[in-house]
Amino acid sequence: MRASAYPLVDPGAAAALVLEHTPVLDAERVPLVDCLGRVLAEEIVASAPLPAFASSAVDGYAVRAADGGRSLRVVGESAAGRPFDRMVEPGTAIRILTGGVLPEGADCVVMIEDVELSGDAVTVPGGLVAGQNFHAPGADLRAGERVLPAGVSLAAAEIGLAAALGLAKLPVGRRPRVALLSTGDELVEVGKTPRRGQITDSNRWALLAALRESGAEVRLLGIGPDDHEPLRRLVVDALAEADVLVTSGGVSVGTHDLIKPLLESLGDVHIGRVKLKPGKPFTFATIPAGMRASASSPARKREQHGTYGLLPEGETGTKLAFGLPGFPVSSLVTFEVFVRPALRKMQGHGQLQRPTLPVRLGYDARATADRTEYQRVTLRREGLELVAASTGSQSSSRLMSLVGAHALVRIPPGDQGIRAGTIVEAMILALP
Amino acid sequence: MRASAYPLVDPGAAAALVLEHTPVLDAERVPLVDCLGRVLAEEIVASAPLPAFASSAVDGYAVRAADGGRSLRVVGESAAGRPFDRMVEPGTAIRILTGGVLPEGADCVVMIEDVELSGDAVTVPGGLVAGQNFHAPGADLRAGERVLPAGVSLAAAEIGLAAALGLAKLPVGRRPRVALLSTGDELVEVGKTPRRGQITDSNRWALLAALRESGAEVRLLGIGPDDHEPLRRLVVDALAEADVLVTSGGVSVGTHDLIKPLLESLGDVHIGRVKLKPGKPFTFATIPAGMRASASSPARKREQHGTYGLLPEGETGTKLAFGLPGFPVSSLVTFEVFVRPALRKMQGHGQLQRPTLPVRLGYDARATADRTEYQRVTLRREGLELVAASTGSQSSSRLMSLVGAHALVRIPPGDQGIRAGTIVEAMILALP
Repeated sequence: MRASAYPLVDPGAAAALVLEHTPVLDAERVPLVDCLGRVLAEEIVASAPLPAFASSAVDGYAVRAADGGRSLRVVGESAAGRPFDRMVEPGTAIRILTGGVLPEGADCVVMIEDVELSGDAVTVPGGLVAGQNFHAPGADLRAGERVLPAGVSLAAAEIGLAAALGLAKLPVGRRPRVALLSTGDELVEVGKTPRRGQITDSNRWALLAALRESGAEVRLLGIGPDDHEPLRRLVVDALAEADVLVTSGGVSVGTHDLIKPLLESLGDVHIGRVKLKPGKPFTFATIPAGMRASASSPARKREQHGTYGLLPEGETGTKLAFGLPGFPVSSLVTFEVFVRPALRKMQGHGQLQRPTLPVRLGYDARATADRTEYQRVTLRREGLELVAASTGSQSSSRLMSLVGAHALVRIPPGDQGIRAGTIVEAMILALP
Repeated sequence: MRASAYPLVDPGAAAALVLEHTPVLDAERVPLVDCLGRVLAEEIVASAPLPAFASSAVDGYAVRAADGGRSLRVVGESAAGRPFDRMVEPGTAIRILTGGVLPEGADCVVMIEDVELSGDAVTVPGGLVAGQNFHAPGADLRAGERVLPAGVSLAAAEIGLAAALGLAKLPVGRRPRVALLSTGDELVEVGKTPRRGQITDSNRWALLAALRESGAEVRLLGIGPDDHEPLRRLVVDALAEADVLVTSGGVSVGTHDLIKPLLESLGDVHIGRVKLKPGKPFTFATIPAGMRASASSPARKREQHGTYGLLPEGETGTKLAFGLPGFPVSSLVTFEVFVRPALRKMQGHGQLQRPTLPVRLGYDARATADRTEYQRVTLRREGLELVAASTGSQSSSRLMSLVGAHALVRIPPGDQGIRAGTIVEAMILALP
C-alpha cells in the first residue's frame, strides 16, 4: 500500500479537461413520439408561414368591416377544414368557426357573442376594424424564420412547433451508451442481507437514476469481479458497445483497488485525484476506440464495431471512463461536477452546466484547507430571497445530505469559509 | 350556432374544482430500476443504522489513539468486505482500507499519507484523537429515523438511500393512464401535406410530451372521428382502460364541436368555460367508472375491469376528462394550469404546482379586461435579480410564445395591467 502517485488537480481544471476530451456524438433522426428530452442537433428554420392561411380566431361571422352596423345575409359557412370557396360580397356574411379559413372578400370576423340573428340575416355591430379576430398568414411564423437553434432540449412546445411545421422526425444527438459497474468486495446485491463488513450496492441504483436523468442509455454490469483479468474482459467487452464506462468504488489507493491500474492499461488516465470534497479519488481516462480496448480479441471487436456502428480500428474516436469514488455522496457529487456536463456535451446540449441562482447562506460554511467543497443545501424563500440551510452532516457516506437537497454551494479551499448572510451563487438541483 | 351556455369560471376556482374531483391512484411496488421520477407512496423509516458497523473513511492504519507517536507492529488487514476479526492489541496496528470494518480495540484510523512504513512496522504521528477517520455505526442514519416522506419524487439520492437500506422495491403511486385524442376536421397527420384550410395535428405531439413529462402513460387515439356515435364508441372503449381522457379542439361553441355534448352524455361537465387567456373554452368533466362509460357493452367492460384492475361496475371511482382548446398555446397553458396538477395529485405528489420565484417585469404587461392572462416570458439574470421579457406576440396560436419560455406570469383581469419594474411571482418552467 502506497500513497497515490497522481497529482491533486483543481476541480475547475479537471472539469475543463474532461470536457476537452469529450466528443459530441453523431446525430440521428427520431420520430416525434421519441423526441421528449432529446437535444436538437440542427437548427430548424420555418419552411412555410404559420398559419398558412388567414384563419379565424373565434366562432362568429366573416364580413367586410365596411358593412359594420348593417344586417347581412348569411350565405354560407367556413368551418375548420371545410373552407367556403366563394367571395364574400358586400351585404353578406358567412358563418365561420374557429380555425376556419377567412374567405376572400371578408376582412374581419365578428364574434358570435356580438351579433343578432334573425332567420337568414345577422346584424353586426358598427365600428368594425379590418383584421379583427383572425390570424393573418405568417402572423405566427414567417417562412424562413429561425425557429429552434441547435442545442436546445426538446419539450412540449418545441415538439409541437416542429409538428406544426410538418416535421415528423427531428435530428437529435445520439444518447450516450453508458456501461455502469460497481466495484468492491464489500458489496452485496440489494435485497440480500449483508454479512458483517458488507454493504448493499446502492451506488448502482443512484448512478443509474442520475445517468438516465442526464439522457444516457445504461447497461448495468453489476458488481465487478475481484480479479484483474476477468474485470478487464468485462470492461473491454462492454466498451465494444458503450461510449462511456462509469465505475464506482475501487479508485482509492488501497491494495484491492483495481480500477486505476485497469484504466492505465486500457488508455490514458488524465485525472487520478482532484482537490474536491467530497470526491478526491475521482479518476478520468480516455480509451481509444478499437485500439487497446480491443486487444484481447481484435477480430471479434472489428466485427462488433461493424455491427454497432462504432469506429473501426485505426480511426480516431474516444471512449470515456469515469472512475467515481465509492462513497455514495462522493459518487453523486463527482457525477454532478464531471459526468453530467460530459453526457450533455455528447448529446449536443447548448447548456452543459446546471443553472445557478444567488442564494443567501443561512449558516456559517467552514472551508476545507486544501479542497474545494460542494456543500449540499436546502433552499427556502424569505421575502424575495432564497436562503440556504445545510442538509446536516456533510459526510461523504451520508446520502441524507443529498436527499431533498435543492442546491450545491461551492466553498473555495482555505481557512476562511463563507459567513452566514453572504450571497453565493448556488448550483440549482431543484427549486423549493 | 349559439353562444355558450356554460358560465365563465374563475381559473383559480376551476383549478381547485379539478383537484377536488381528482382521485389519488393506488400505490404499486416497483423495483429500483424503474423508480426514477416516480412518487413515493409511503414514508420510509430506516430499519437499521447506517453504517451498520464502524467503517474506515480512508486508507490507512487502524490503531489505538493512545499509541500515537509510536512505532507499531502491523498484524493484519481489514479490507472492505474482509474484516479483521481479532482484537487490535496495544502496540499493534492493522492495515485498513476505505470501507473496511474498524476492528475491535482500535479507536481511530491514521491516513496512509501520515505514517512511515519500515518492514512490518508503521510509525504513526502523536496526538491521535479517538474517533478519527472512521464512520461510527449509525453516524449516517439511526435505526428508526424517518428517511423519506410520502409524496416525494424519487431521484438519484432517494433511490440510492432506499437501496442502502436494502429495499429492492418501493411503494410508488401508479402512473395515470391517459387517452389522448385530437379533434378537428382540419387536422392532418404530421408529414402529410395539408390542403387549403387544413393544418397538421401538432397538439397530439406537444400534449404527449407534456403528459409524459408529468408522469402519465399515454395511449394515442389519433384524430377523432367526425360523427357523434363513432367518437362516443372510441372514447368509451378508451376509458375502459384509461384513468383520464385528454382531448384538444372541439370545445368552442361552433356547430361542429362534438366534445362537450359527448362529455355531457357520459358524465358531469363541471367546467365549460374559464376566465382565462389563453384557454377560455377549457372543459372539465368527470365520468363515473363502470357506469355510463361502460353502457355500450357491460359484459366486456366487466371483463376488462378485472384484467386491468379497474373498479368493477357499481363501485365508486371516477375518470377525469379534460377538453382542452384547439389552439396550441391554449392547450398547453390549460394543461399547465389544470391538467398537470391533477396528474401529480393522482400519483400522490406532495407538491402539485410549479415552483415560483420573484421576477422583475421587464415590460409593461397589459391586462385583459375580463380574463386572467398567463403571459409567457423568458428570464435573464441582472445582478441578483431575474428579469422577465415577453416572448413576443401572445397569440393563442403562436407556439413561438412558449418555445424557450422560462416562466408564466399571471396578469389579473382588469384595466390596470402590471407596469415594467414591478416584482411578480412567476411560475417557473425552466431556469435560464
